Parts: sequence; C-alpha cells; structure tokens
Amino acid sequence: MSIRILILNGPNLNMLGQRETEHYGKEPFTQILGYLQKSFPCFDIDYFQSNHEGALIDKVHEFHLYKGIVVNAGALSHYSYALHDALKMVKTPKVEVHMSNIYAREPFRHHSVLSAVCNGTICGFGKHSYALALTWLKEYLPE
Amino acid sequence: MSIRILILNGPNLNMLGQRETEHYGKEPFTQILGYLQKSFPCFDIDYFQSNHEGALIDKVHEFHLYKGIVVNAGALSHYSYALHDALKMVKTPKVEVHMSNIYAREPFRHHSVLSAVCNGTICGFGKHSYALALTWLKEYLPE
Amino acid sequence: MSIRILILNGPNLNMLGQRETEHYGKEPFTQILGYLQKSFPCFDIDYFQSNHEGALIDKVHEFHLYKGIVVNAGALSHYSYALHDALKMVKTPKVEVHMSNIYAREPFRHHSVLSAVCNGTICGFGKHSYALALTWLKEYLPE
Amino acid sequence: MSIRILILNGPNLNMLGQRETEHYGKEPFTQILGYLQKSFPCFDIDYFQSNHEGALIDKVHEFHLYKGIVVNAGALSHYSYALHDALKMVKTPKVEVHMSNIYAREPFRHHSVLSAVCNGTICGFGKHSYALALTWLKEYLPE
Amino acid sequence: MSIRILILNGPNLNMLGQRETEHYGKEPFTQILGYLQKSFPCFDIDYFQSNHEGALIDKVHEFHLYKGIVVNAGALSHYSYALHDALKMVKTPKVEVHMSNIYAREPFRHHSVLSAVCNGTICGFGKHSYALALTWLKEYLPE
Amino acid sequence: MSIRILILNGPNLNMLGQRETEHYGKEPFTQILGYLQKSFPCFDIDYFQSNHEGALIDKVHEFHLYKGIVVNAGALSHYSYALHDALKMVKTPKVEVHMSNIYAREPFRHHSVLSAVCNGTICGFGKHSYALALTWLKEYLPE
Amino acid sequence: MSIRILILNGPNLNMLGQRETEHYGKEPFTQILGYLQKSFPCFDIDYFQSNHEGALIDKVHEFHLYKGIVVNAGALSHYSYALHDALKMVKTPKVEVHMSNIYAREPFRHHSVLSAVCNGTICGFGKHSYALALTWLKEYLPE
Amino acid sequence: MSIRILILNGPNLNMLGQRETEHYGKEPFTQILGYLQKSFPCFDIDYFQSNHEGALIDKVHEFHLYKGIVVNAGALSHYSYALHDALKMVKTPKVEVHMSNIYAREPFRHHSVLSAVCNGTICGFGKHSYALALTWLKEYLPE
Amino acid sequence: MSIRILILNGPNLNMLGQRETEHYGKEPFTQILGYLQKSFPCFDIDYFQSNHEGALIDKVHEFHLYKGIVVNAGALSHYSYALHDALKMVKTPKVEVHMSNIYAREPFRHHSVLSAVCNGTICGFGKHSYALALTWLKEYLPE
Amino acid sequence: MSIRILILNGPNLNMLGQRETEHYGKEPFTQILGYLQKSFPCFDIDYFQSNHEGALIDKVHEFHLYKGIVVNAGALSHYSYALHDALKMVKTPKVEVHMSNIYAREPFRHHSVLSAVCNGTICGFGKHSYALALTWLKEYLPE
Amino acid sequence: MSIRILILNGPNLNMLGQRETEHYGKEPFTQILGYLQKSFPCFDIDYFQSNHEGALIDKVHEFHLYKGIVVNAGALSHYSYALHDALKMVKTPKVEVHMSNIYAREPFRHHSVLSAVCNGTICGFGKHSYALALTWLKEYLPE
Amino acid sequence: MSIRILILNGPNLNMLGQRETEHYGKEPFTQILGYLQKSFPCFDIDYFQSNHEGALIDKVHEFHLYKGIVVNAGALSHYSYALHDALKMVKTPKVEVHMSNIYAREPFRHHSVLSAVCNGTICGFGKHSYALALTWLKEYLPE
Repeated sequence: MSIRILILNGPNLNMLGQRETEHYGKEPFTQILGYLQKSFPCFDIDYFQSNHEGALIDKVHEFHLYKGIVVNAGALSHYSYALHDALKMVKTPKVEVHMSNIYAREPFRHHSVLSAVCNGTICGFGKHSYALALTWLKEYLPE
Repeated sequence: MSIRILILNGPNLNMLGQRETEHYGKEPFTQILGYLQKSFPCFDIDYFQSNHEGALIDKVHEFHLYKGIVVNAGALSHYSYALHDALKMVKTPKVEVHMSNIYAREPFRHHSVLSAVCNGTICGFGKHSYALALTWLKEYLPE
Repeated sequence: MSIRILILNGPNLNMLGQRETEHYGKEPFTQILGYLQKSFPCFDIDYFQSNHEGALIDKVHEFHLYKGIVVNAGALSHYSYALHDALKMVKTPKVEVHMSNIYAREPFRHHSVLSAVCNGTICGFGKHSYALALTWLKEYLPE
Repeated sequence: MSIRILILNGPNLNMLGQRETEHYGKEPFTQILGYLQKSFPCFDIDYFQSNHEGALIDKVHEFHLYKGIVVNAGALSHYSYALHDALKMVKTPKVEVHMSNIYAREPFRHHSVLSAVCNGTICGFGKHSYALALTWLKEYLPE
Repeated sequence: MSIRILILNGPNLNMLGQRETEHYGKEPFTQILGYLQKSFPCFDIDYFQSNHEGALIDKVHEFHLYKGIVVNAGALSHYSYALHDALKMVKTPKVEVHMSNIYAREPFRHHSVLSAVCNGTICGFGKHSYALALTWLKEYLPE
Repeated sequence: MSIRILILNGPNLNMLGQRETEHYGKEPFTQILGYLQKSFPCFDIDYFQSNHEGALIDKVHEFHLYKGIVVNAGALSHYSYALHDALKMVKTPKVEVHMSNIYAREPFRHHSVLSAVCNGTICGFGKHSYALALTWLKEYLPE
Repeated sequence: MSIRILILNGPNLNMLGQRETEHYGKEPFTQILGYLQKSFPCFDIDYFQSNHEGALIDKVHEFHLYKGIVVNAGALSHYSYALHDALKMVKTPKVEVHMSNIYAREPFRHHSVLSAVCNGTICGFGKHSYALALTWLKEYLPE
Repeated sequence: MSIRILILNGPNLNMLGQRETEHYGKEPFTQILGYLQKSFPCFDIDYFQSNHEGALIDKVHEFHLYKGIVVNAGALSHYSYALHDALKMVKTPKVEVHMSNIYAREPFRHHSVLSAVCNGTICGFGKHSYALALTWLKEYLPE
Repeated sequence: MSIRILILNGPNLNMLGQRETEHYGKEPFTQILGYLQKSFPCFDIDYFQSNHEGALIDKVHEFHLYKGIVVNAGALSHYSYALHDALKMVKTPKVEVHMSNIYAREPFRHHSVLSAVCNGTICGFGKHSYALALTWLKEYLPE
Repeated sequence: MSIRILILNGPNLNMLGQRETEHYGKEPFTQILGYLQKSFPCFDIDYFQSNHEGALIDKVHEFHLYKGIVVNAGALSHYSYALHDALKMVKTPKVEVHMSNIYAREPFRHHSVLSAVCNGTICGFGKHSYALALTWLKEYLPE
Repeated sequence: MSIRILILNGPNLNMLGQRETEHYGKEPFTQILGYLQKSFPCFDIDYFQSNHEGALIDKVHEFHLYKGIVVNAGALSHYSYALHDALKMVKTPKVEVHMSNIYAREPFRHHSVLSAVCNGTICGFGKHSYALALTWLKEYLPE
Repeated sequence: MSIRILILNGPNLNMLGQRETEHYGKEPFTQILGYLQKSFPCFDIDYFQSNHEGALIDKVHEFHLYKGIVVNAGALSHYSYALHDALKMVKTPKVEVHMSNIYAREPFRHHSVLSAVCNGTICGFGKHSYALALTWLKEYLPE
C-alpha cells in the first residue's frame, strides 16, 4: 500500500508556466506533478492548490491523513502568520519548498514566516525542490 | 426575547483543544461555547469561525443583526488591515479577545491591528476572556 | 463590438456609502458603476468585488478576457504580496485606483505593494479616480 | 471573612475626573472605588495610588497580603522596567487594566512593558475595566 | 473666457526628451505642452518650470491667479518640505503628477512629501498623467 | 499683590554649579533664583526642586495655585511620560526651559517628551533661559 | 548709534497671516516687524525673507554686518544641512525661533538640523518668539 | 581608620533571595552584605537600597563621603538617564555591577545607560560581582 | 572515472558531535563523510574544513577542480561578505546547506549573506541536508 | 587648443579659508583655483560656485560645453536628489570631490546621494582632492 | 601542581603600548602578563594572541586543557559570530574582558556578541580587568 | 634611494581579471602592479594580498617600514572592525581605494568601516584608483 503525501501550493502557482518564466520555467505544475508521481511511485501524492489562504489552512488541518507535507505557499510565505499557526500544530513531517532562490530576489521575499515551523527548507532548484523534499520523505526520514 | 450576540473566531481556532495546548488548553471551542451560552442565558449567541479572512469580513458586514460582537481573529489580528477596516465601520459594541497573553509570546503577536478599532481588548484569561467580554456586553454597556 | 474591461474591488468596498463616509462619500458602488458605464459607453464593464484575497487573485487570472483592468484592492493594497504576484504576471494594461488620498491618512495606508506592478496609480479623486482610469484606457493607451 | 484585594493606580490617576476627560470620564476615582466596593462585596479592596514609581514597587512587594492585584500604572506602563521586575516576581493573580483604549491613542501608549508579566490585560472599558478585572478574580480564577 | 490653469514643473524637467528616456520618453516638454493646450482648449495654461525650489514656492504663492494647479516637482517631491508647506496653504484644486511610475523605481522615489497636501496623485502614464489631471480639473471638479 | 509663579526643577539641578560646569556654569541655582526674583519683582516665585519624578508630578498637580509654570525636568525630560501626562492636564501657561543647548549634546538629549505639552520651549541661554520664560509670562502672555 | 540686527525668515513666512492661521495667527510679518522695531528701539533691524535656500545662505554670509541674528528657517529647518553649515561658521550670536510649537505638530517638524549650531532655540510663543530672541540679544548677551 | 565605601542597590534588590532565583540565587542581600563586609574588613561599607530613582540620585549626591561607589541599579540601569546624570558628575571611583549576565537575558537588559559614566562594569558573577568590584577598589585603584 | 565534488565546512564544524548536540546531533563529521561517500559512490568527495575565513576563500578559488560545491559556512554565513564575493565568481554549481533549521534559532542566524550567490539552499535536515545537496548534483543538475 | 573643464562648488565653499578651518584649511578657493590652473595648463578651467541648488543644476545642464566635471556640492551632497538627477543624465566624465574626509565627521556627512551617479569619488585630501580629479581627467580617462 | 589557565587576546592586542594609548595605556602585554603571572602564582597561564579569527577559534577548541579562559577578542568581539559559536560550546569557566570601557567609546563597540556566551564580563579597568577575571577564577569559582 | 610603499589588497583581489569583470575589468593585478611600478619609478612598491583578515592586520602592523600605504580591503571594508583598529594606530599616510564605484553597487558596499581611519578615499576609477593614490603620496603629501 502506498504512502499518502500532500503537496500544498499557494497563490499563483496554478499559473506556473505562464508567469515570470525567468524565475519559474515554462512547465505547468500538472506536468511537474506527473514527473514527481512517476519518480516517486512509492507515494500516493495528493495535490492541492489554492489562491485562498483560508483554503490552504483548511487543508493543513487534514494533516492526519498524510505521512508528509510539502508546502510552497508562494507569496503568502512572507506574511501569512495564520498559515504559520496552522503548520505549527502539525506533527507530520513537513518541508517548505520554493522553486526560485527567494534570497536572490526582491527584499520582501528574503524572509519566510513559515520556515521556522517546518522541519526544513529547500529552495532554488526549480521543480527539483519538490523532488528533493520527496527524497527526504522517502529516504531520510527517521522511522 | 433574548439579545443576539456574535462570537467571531478566526483562523485555527477550530483546532482548539488539539493545538498548542500550553497556550490554549485542551477544551474544544464547542465545549467553551456551551459553557458561555449556559453562563449567559440572556444572550442568543451566534458562533462563526472561519480560516478565511474574507469570510470573517463578510460576517462582520452583518453587524446590524447583533447587539454586540466578540472577536478573536487569531493570527489575522496581527496583519489583517482588511478586517481592521471592516470592524472600523461597525457601530455595534465590539470586544477583541485573546485566550493567551499575546504580549508574553512571540514578537509578531505583540501588536494587534484590530485593537484600535474595537471598544476594548481582553486577553490572557483563557476561555474566561470570552466570558468577561460577555459580562461587559451584559452588565456594563451604556444603554 | 464594445471593449471588455474589468473593475476589481477589494475588501469592504461593497459597503461603500455606509462606511467612513468622510473618506469615501455616501454613494454605493452600484450607483457609481451605473455612472461609469453611462460615461464610458464604449466599454463593457465587468464588475467584481470580493472580501476574499483568493477570489481577487482568481479573477486577476482571467486577465486574458479583458483589454484593461482597474483595481482598487482596499486595505489588501498594503500587504497582499499574493495579489502583487498575480498582477505582476498580467500584460493587460492595469491601473491602481483609490478613492481617498491614501497618503493623507494613517501611516499603514501610505505604501501600496501593488503600485509597482501596475502601469500607474490614481488616487484621491473619489469616484472620479475610476473615471480617470477609464479615460486613460479609452483615450491614451498606446495601440 | 472577605478576601483582600489590591487596586494599584499609578501617576496622575489621582486627578481622574479633572484630566483628559475625553479619555477618562468625569468621575473621580474615589467615586469609582465606592462603586467597585459596592459591586464586589466579597472583596475587601485596598486602594493605593502614587505618582512615585518607587512607592508603587514598594507596594507590589506586599503582594503576599493579597489574593489578587489590579494594576493601572498610567504612563509608567510604557517605560517602567523596574515595575515590570517587581510584578514579575509576584505569584498572586494580577491583572493589568487601562480605562482608555491605549491602542487607539498616541504611539507611545501602544506598548505596555507590564503586559507580559501580568496574567492578562483589560483595556478600553472605562471604570468597567476594573470591574471586569474583579469579575475575573471573583468568578473565574482557578482554585 | 478661458480658465487659467498652472502647470508647475520642478528640477530637470526642462531636460525632458534628452534625459533618462527609458523613464520619460523622447518628447521635450514644450511639445507636450502644445499637445495639452490643443487637447484642452477650454484652459489657458500657464507653464512654469524651474530648477530652484524657491522659485517654485514663489510661483505657488500666486495660486489665486489660477483655477487649478498641476504639479510635478521632480526629485524635490521626495524631500522639499518647504514646497509641501507652500502647497498646503493653497485652496485651489491641485494635482500631483509624475510621468514615470515612481513606485517601480529607486526607493528614494517611493515616497512623495507632497502627496498628502494635494487633492490627488496621478503617476505612471507619461505625458498622459498631465492630461488626466487636466481631465479632472475640466470634467470632475465639483463646482 | 504679586503673581505666584512656579519654577520646577528636576533631577540633579540641585547640584548646579558643581556639575558639568562646561554646560551649566558655576553658579548654584539658589543664586540664580535670587537673580530671577530680583529681576522680576512682579512675581512671587515658588521654587521646587526634586530628584523624584513622583514629587515633581505631585507639584504639577498644584498648578491651580500658579499663574505660570517654568519647568526644567533635567534628564527626565527625555523619558518621563508620567510627567508628560501631568503637564498635559495643566491649563496654566507653562514653559519648558533648558540651560544648555540640548540639541548640541548627546543624542538622548535631542528629544524631550515634554515639549509637545508645554506652550513653548526655550533652551541654550544658561540662566537666561529662565529669565526669558519669565519675560514671556510677564509681558507677552495674552490676558 | 543703534545696533544692527538681522531677522532672517525662510520659506512661506512671507505668507504669514494668510496661511495655516491656526498655527501662525492672522498678522502679516510686516506688522509683526513694526511691533518688534517699536519694542526694541535700541536695535536697527534688517529683515530678510526668502523662499530660496541659497538666498538665505548668501545672507548668512553677511553675518559680520550684524551683532545678532534671529533665524526662522521655516520647513528648511528640518533638512537644510547647507544652511546648517552656513550658520555653523557664524560667530555672531544667533537664535533659532519658531512661532508654532514644532514639537506638537507633524513628526517631520520635531527635529531641526539648525538647533545644534545656534546659541539657543525659542519656539511656541507666536510673534513673541522673536521678541524673546531680541530680549536675549538686548539684555542677556555677555559682553 | 577604615575606608568608607557605598554599595547602592536599585529597585527590587531588596527582594533578593525571593525573586527570580534562577538569575539571582536564594541568598538575601543582607547575607551577601555580611559576607562582603567580612571579606573586606579594610572597608566600612554603607549599604543603601531603594526602589525610588530619586532616592538613589539623592544618595549619589553624597558621593564626597565615600572613596568608592558600587552601583547595581537593577532595571533602572536600562532607562534612568537621571541616574546617569547623577553618576556622571561623580569623581569618586564607581563600578557598575550586575549579578546576572544581563547580555544573556531579555533584549531590554542588553544596554545599560549607566555603563558609560562608570569606571567599569562587572556582570554575571552573582554576589561575586560585588566582591570583584571591592577587590578593584581595594587593590588596583591608582593612588 | 568519478566526478570530483567539494564539501566545504566552516568554523566549528570540526567540533560536530561534541557541540550543541540538540541542534547538530552526536555524530562527528568524519562519520557523516563516510556515510555520504558510501551513499554517493559516483562522486569523489574532497572534504575541507577550516575555522579561517581566508582558508575557505582560498579553497573556493580552486573551484575549477570541481563539478559541484556544497558549502556550510557555519556562523560565517551570517556576516562574511568576503566569502560571498568568492562564491559569487564561481560558475560551478554550488549549494548552501545547514544541518539545523537556522530560521528557528537566534535572530542572527535567520539571514545568510551566502544564499543569494548559491544555486539553492537546503537547511534543517541534519546530515541529510548534505545528502540532498549531493542528490541534486547527481540527479537533477541540467547537463 | 585647451580642453574645457568645469569645477562646480556648492554651498558655503565661497567662504573657504574663513570657515571651519580645522576641516578645510585657510586658503580661499580663488587661490586654490590659481594653483590648479597653473598645475594643469592643459585645461581651461571654468569655475562656478553657488549657494543655490537650482543654480548648480542649471550649470550641470550645460555639461555639453565640457570634457569633464569636478563637483563638490558641499552639504547638498547629502540630500539633493534634484542634483543627483541632474548629474545622472550627464555623459561627460564627472568626479565627486570633498576636501575633508566626510566619513570621519558627523553622521549626516557619511552618505552622499551624488556618489552613485559620478564616475568616482575622491575625498579627504584637501585641495589635492581637486588636483587628483584633474589628474584623472588628464591622464587616465579612456579616449 | 598549578592550574592551567588560558588568556586569549584578539586582533591588535599585540600592539598594546604603542596604539591608542589614551584607551589602553603604554604597557606592552608581555609586561602585563608578567605582572599577572606574578600576582597569581597558583596559575600556570598560557598566553595566546592572534590577529586571525580562525586561530582564536582553533585555540578555543583546546578548552579541555584549561580550568578557565579569559578572553579579550578586541574588535572581533563586535561581529565574530564564529567565535561566539566556539565559546558557546565551552563548558570551562570563561570571562570576557576589555581593558577600556567599551560603553564609553564608539557605538560599534557598545555591543559584544560574545558576552551572552561567557560567564561574565569585566571591562574598563585596564590591565586590572584581567586581574579581576583571574581573581574570580581563583577565589570565587564554585567547585 | 627609492621610497618604500605598501599596496595591501584584501579578499578575492587575487582573482582580478577572472571575476565580476563588469566591475573590475579583465586585467590581473600582477599586470596592474607592473603598470603602477613603471609609472611611479620613484617608489619601491611592496605588494601584499591575502584572503585572511588576520594576515592583512599582521601586515599593517609593519607600517613603520613604509612611507605610505594604499589599501583595498575588498569586502572586508564593510565589516572588519579589526582591520579598522589596525589602520587607526598607523601614523603613516594611508589611502583607501576601490576599483569599482562602491556607492553604485549593492547596499552592503555603500559603507566602509575603514574610510574614517584613512587619510582619504578614492573609488570608482578602476586601476587608476591606485595610480591616483600613488600620485597623492608622490606629489601632494606634505613634507
């Protein structure tokens, strides 16, 4: 039986492939998702994207359904203390990812209010940021 | 005929009893609500909780249905100027409450952008913060 | 065939005419909309208002349906980097408007995180801020 | 036998009723004290007011005589770390109160250095801020 | 009889068309002025440009000669409190304009000390910023 | 009958003549007081000096006994919001004075929290700062 | 032979009596000048007002013609380091004056870059601020 | 004949042994004083403790009675510029001490406004901070 | 032939296993290195650790010898602009790693001056931070 | 034919030799100018000094007459964004000079808003700062 | 058998006696060392000075050889978080010393990043700062 | 006999010609050194480059061997207070140089902690920054 994992994407990530392609590349996330599912057949990946902070929080509250959470909250990473609080209560292993190197962009992106309440952060590797997060969940997570 | 009162709870307060119990205790809010309703039989308490800033604002816009509003906006208290604007227009008596002592926690919780547009603030008394707010609405509100 | 234009209003603008009338006047936005539609018959104006940041972002993502966007994000203007990101990807001409002079009000309103990603900003002229934005879209936009 | 309670008022509160009446009302504190004593006959209320930080600290050091302390330190709330230290050592239940809504006034009043070392804070309800503090001491304090 | 209007341009705007053309275009202001005068025949436009803060203030003091003032103070917008004071005393309708989107440029240009003392601000539309200001003076100004 | 005036001196001004003589000169205040009393025979000058913030506040509360107050709060000028509050309630004409030019000394002395609640401020003229304050009270005060 | 004194007024003070009368009163400065000249017959008062920072500096450079300088630089007080440098080199006794209480107005007026390079500062006494400065020059200046 | 030395303790140090024992230990200061007096028989130690800033300043003014001053001003260290001024005038050797390591505690304790006006600072050694200060006065002070 | 890779460790990482074990675990880095080498046999890993900023820079200058660089600069990450400059010139793929979650520790660790000049950052996964960096170099690096 | 060069001096530099001689020496600039002209006979030096920001800007606008500009804007260096804008448009080689070491004086002199828009900066060498600027223009300027 | 103690001196302390003698005196450290060794015959003092941050860290890592460490890191005290980390792991008693009163010098010297990770700090007593540190190690250290 | 001069280069300047060539050009420093030596035959130039702060400080301590020092400390310029202290004690004439215009680059490069302790600063002229420094040492240095 495969292991259930959540990938949670925040605002504007539904536009991937159309938007700021110098930072995010031209691939839509559905295509990335296919690639990730194929690369990690051991996982049953649930994908949830929303432009609504509240919907993301509602989803985080279902954490007990998952063995791991990979979260890319987009611009909400920089101010959503409500999402911070939601993630803080989650005991499930959780990884913050960003496709672009947020530290090399505008100042408002240099600080994420979510980093402190995730197990770790991976950023700057494009779609491979997700793949590395899944690698951690698959191979390195202590039993 | 009883007096209609709104208790408005923000993000993550639906998880009360499961989350950060050192700050918030182990009682779910439904149980707290029962206790409040029983203690203040003179009030007909409407309870609304949402993790969505927009839904909270929509609810505040129904202020004319109530004689009093008790609001605990959770982490939105610290950055939601949109909720600030919604509350600012309300003439209905309104009280900001927090269960934990927000001034004794992380720095981002030390300032609420809602305080200035409520009649008053009560924080640090656990579920009794709500009870004290209702006490004010019941006993001390000028006619 | 008329040109399709989007007017996007953020939190609390549905309460126009009832709220902080010293800043915003007593006219509800439906009435203002009638006036704008009548003044600019060349445009087919879609009006969308929401108190939900996510719903506003969802709407911005439909930008390809419009020849121009006029956005008044209310208090979200001052902290919604998610809306900033949504607008940044839009190539459609877009104008930020505010009815009140935001620079003459509380400090938190002095900076809009949306200004840098719109073509221009118009503020302080009441309902005429919208009319001037439409004037620009109608008369001055380079082909 | 009644329960001994301390109400501790800081600088300028002896001038209540004569000073900044738009914030504090026209009632002198002696009159408020009468009202509080009458409303809470279960308490034997000791009242101490001083314009001297040192005298307030001396009084706090007598905490063992009381079952509860209600403190309104006036402007000292905003800079007296010495009073902060005095209150910090007190195990007796203690409530910080303010009659006016300090968050809606000058910036220097938005932060109290005492809040973090009291059980909770109640502000904005005029004389009823004291009454609510006493209500908490009377009804909600855990045994 | 036509209505007298003042366009007041600050430092370096005499170099328009030669300077930082990526922000301001290649048209000299005399040419823009011709276009504005032709577009708004109802107005008798006085044009005054100076690189001297004092000369601009002197000119503002002649406000009683005009029915409207359109001011683009260039870099003085960001530090000239003396010009701020001059404009503050003017009851004549006044509009602050900028040709470039000042919010999308260097940080020192993100704040104008003049905005709060003008009726409104229009920025980012090139020469059309002036045209929109004149549109407001012509069509929307309350009698 | 002579007019009663209060000169209120704060911490360390009792040491005048012995302390930091490069800023304050070598004359003790008693000598200065004699000079002032002689120069302004129309006034009956009460002199009160204390190193205690509370004692200064107590004295300010006797404002109704005086036709004018001249206050030099020494270092308390820079942080005593309690004294600020005391002076704020006083309707009696009051002048803040400093003997040294506080703006030419250490940064902590550049801002006085009392200035905004006095009628005016006079600093930098040594003992003549007091004399000028008395001159104002004597000659220029509107009836 | 009378003593030559310079009164130097900065931007917008030529509009006195017409502008922000709640701060500055309704008297034009020419009238105030007459009053000052009459009150201090011992002085031969030169009056110079300009809205040009450069003209004020040019005038300060003529300091050797005067026995005393009274300077009210208006809004330039808050940012003109060039005027600061000009005054710094002057050995002639010089007094900074302000008619309004600058510490009780907008934050940008709370700090004057000129204070540290004048002998003293007098502010808040309306036209009498000038009179007190002249009093100092006349009576208290050490030989 | 023994040498007279002053130990000056500020607010809350009278509660030593009862308060924040993780920082200060369980010994009351009287006991510490006995230990110090016994260890330094060459000194005649005057001990003065007060919770009143003013009383501490009054005491500092008696500096001429002593050959050395050891001062632990408690929380006043962090904001009492009045005490700073009092100590600044003292020529007597003076040492600032703190029992706890103030740099390892809350941010408000990281800066003492008294350090710059004492000969030196010793902190973090519990009661031995006093002993080291006395050692300096006894053994290392230049004649 | 295997691919040469550099792991560069900064100050105090030679003490791993002995120091702050709650953040870094009890394994010395030599043991971790064995584990990494065994897990990634395709790589020929050069390991260099130094407590000297200069030695680390010297090593970075040998970048042409490697196909990839994994850098954990320890506390130098937070202030060494010299190391920033060294890494900036390197075209070789480079990954910044931290074993602990630096965003959940002291404020000085929340910002790394190296992040912006590396391809990406991985932090919070203990020794697996290194493993994930090597995974990226091995599997996801574009040819 | 000699090469035309502009030396542009800002406020108060006309007073050189009389003012703050510890920073600037006792030589008037006319004398320095003679020395420079004699040392660089290859140049035809135009000298322009003004205390008026506007006049300096006007002069910069004549840049096409010169092969090089040497600018010492005095205190305007620290706040004149209008002069910054003027210099920014100039393609002519331009050097910012200061006679004193501005980094070793008051904090307000530590940052020049002109540095970023000149080719380079030379400061601290007295009159030789000018000579070095001319040396660069003469010998090192790329053809 | 004598007790081994480390005195660790940072950058520029090898120049003692030649450098900034108003702060540090004219004695070279070798002479001070002789004096300390003679005064504390119970200790076997190892002396290590380096201008290299890395060498100081290397030395701190030998902490197990010593019963106590006295560290004066010179200017590194103010920014070397790498040295902070090295000292943090040391369980050996350690004292931070400074010869001059760092709180009375330039602002950059007012904060040491090492203070929080040492047992205590002693500063301002010249060479006696070392002697007092050794006194603590000898006499007051708990077994 | 030629005059001995030190050129001291900090971190990463050994990579000149290979690194960030848009700021520093393509010439290696050895080549620049040859050019400088040839241009200034009167000088015997010692060249010392290191990536180690400590090595640079060690070298500065040999100042007595030189008649002049030219220092380009690279990125250490922005945080090495230890190098600041080393240079401060040097009486030998010393010039800070930068090849690029540091004021036109990233904010962290806008302030050098070394400027205040050198005679002067020259920046922005590429290799000619060194040549100008040598020109000063050769021609303009007072005997």
